[in-house]
Amino acid sequence: MVVLGIDPGISNLGLGVVEGDGARARFLHAELVRTRHGDPAAARVGAIYEAVAGAIAEHRPEAVAVEAQFFYRQNELAYKVGWAMGAVFLAAGQAGLEVFQYGPMEVKRALVGTGRADKRQVAFMVRALLGLKQTPSSSHAADALAVALTHLAHLRTGTTPRV
Amino acid sequence: MVVLGIDPGISNLGLGVVEGDGARARFLHAELVRTRHGDPAAARVGAIYEAVAGAIAEHRPEAVAVEAQFFYRQNELAYKVGWAMGAVFLAAGQAGLEVFQYGPMEVKRALVGTGRADKRQVAFMVRALLGLKQTPSSSHAADALAVALTHLAHLRTGTTPRV
Repeated sequence: MVVLGIDPGISNLGLGVVEGDGARARFLHAELVRTRHGDPAAARVGAIYEAVAGAIAEHRPEAVAVEAQFFYRQNELAYKVGWAMGAVFLAAGQAGLEVFQYGPMEVKRALVGTGRADKRQVAFMVRALLGLKQTPSSSHAADALAVALTHLAHLRTGTTPRV
Repeated sequence: MVVLGIDPGISNLGLGVVEGDGARARFLHAELVRTRHGDPAAARVGAIYEAVAGAIAEHRPEAVAVEAQFFYRQNELAYKVGWAMGAVFLAAGQAGLEVFQYGPMEVKRALVGTGRADKRQVAFMVRALLGLKQTPSSSHAADALAVALTHLAHLRTGTTPRV
């Protein structure tokens, strides 16, 4: 199945698409969607929506997997990341897709085998699992791939937390 | 001009539409959009989007006015309200509308004349300014009307903070 992974953000949103079954996974697409701080919120959310909807139309994923957000006294950021997620949810919903959510620990555990893995180990495993020559230049796109891969891993265990 | 006011929320979102010029204002519509906690986020954001887009299509507002959100250690809530705002921004953007944002103090100051007014005074002024027999049964819808009225007031002074 094809999975669209999302690393949410309002200024920098990572998109990653992989195809895989229980045993293997294949890189299809990775992209960083950037929006400018000074632009109107509707334009920023609209740009994210277009990018997400475009990726869905092109790659026909069967699921969307999102990295869960944990904020610490950063309500302003939480709020704005939420704007972006609104567009993501909308694009997913219009395509009849379910959205799943995974925390950073779950991504690390799924890809590296321990929740205490560091970022580089996760990036290494993304590269390894997808047979890439190098890690995507955007860490957000890499994280998006990582969460898509996490969803594939969780399909095997049957624990897929829908959001 | 017709203004669509929004009191943002993911479970309870208030919609209010007023028409007015510099001197008078008229009630056109008020509505509480509710989404259920257990439903998928895409469905919740989709429902909000449909409601906002529907209100825009029916009432042809020329601007959307949103009550600014201030959160205190409630990141989870901030994030989810943001989801809703994503749908709002998207619907506004697709209709070519600008979105403006006002804080609670600005709403109180615009409607009652002092930033220290209480909720009941604001509700009273919404009723009075719009010539309503009673306050809308949803306080969210009432707040949405209040922020729409605030935008009309700010058009007179020329200070309309776009978000």
